[in-house]
Amino acid sequence: MSDSETLLFANEFFYRAFAGRDMKGLEEIWHYSPGVSCTHPGWNPIIGRIAVLQSFRTILQGASPPDVRCLAPKPVLLGDSAYVLCHEALGGNYLVATNIFVRDGRLWRLHHHHAGPAVNPPETAEFPPISIN
Amino acid sequence: MSDSETLLFANEFFYRAFAGRDMKGLEEIWHYSPGVSCTHPGWNPIIGRIAVLQSFRTILQGASPPDVRCLAPKPVLLGDSAYVLCHEALGGNYLVATNIFVRDGRLWRLHHHHAGPAVNPPETAEFPPISIN
Repeated sequence: MSDSETLLFANEFFYRAFAGRDMKGLEEIWHYSPGVSCTHPGWNPIIGRIAVLQSFRTILQGASPPDVRCLAPKPVLLGDSAYVLCHEALGGNYLVATNIFVRDGRLWRLHHHHAGPAVNPPETAEFPPISIN
Repeated sequence: MSDSETLLFANEFFYRAFAGRDMKGLEEIWHYSPGVSCTHPGWNPIIGRIAVLQSFRTILQGASPPDVRCLAPKPVLLGDSAYVLCHEALGGNYLVATNIFVRDGRLWRLHHHHAGPAVNPPETAEFPPISIN
């Protein structure tokens, strides 16, 4: 697999874990650095692995954990780090996200996630689904 | 200057150029890679240096170009790339931003900017102003 493919795999892994309420998957895909960070829609940035994972735990334990799906991911490689731009579909609404990854051997782990409202759906076609099973 | 200091300098340079309607400064701080990208609040991601700079030109030529100010920047170093989390103050409103930079010699250049609405002002104190003159 190319760097772009493994990056998109990691990005898709994150969304499948999130949508699947899979805290173990989220703990795995987030980088083990204590300095990871996350900006949920409308929230202030959360800094630190423990606080970031706790925020996902809180969301997943909520009344309506998000039925989120990633659309049209665009990988951008920057050597040993990288980012993915994508839309997120939640019911009939769309968000737009920036996901920053750091290389960890042959894998990529998520270092920062920022999602905010999008006015429009993605303009490009949906990226073909990637099997992670 | 440490890596963190030069990174915060670059981040502040971006906001001063933006607020100062300084297209030359924006052309300088954005990375020269054709693959840079930008997600303005509510917009879909814009990809490509020409399109990104054109979007800033359009905003700055608009009726009310943003009186934007960066608050509470938090630098995160990832080797030859880095990101800054910060709030943006626009009049009485706040946005929250993720700015990804790539090292270029002793400088950092902006590779991606994502700003979206924030519910709250920053929780941490404002970073001391950095002189860029």
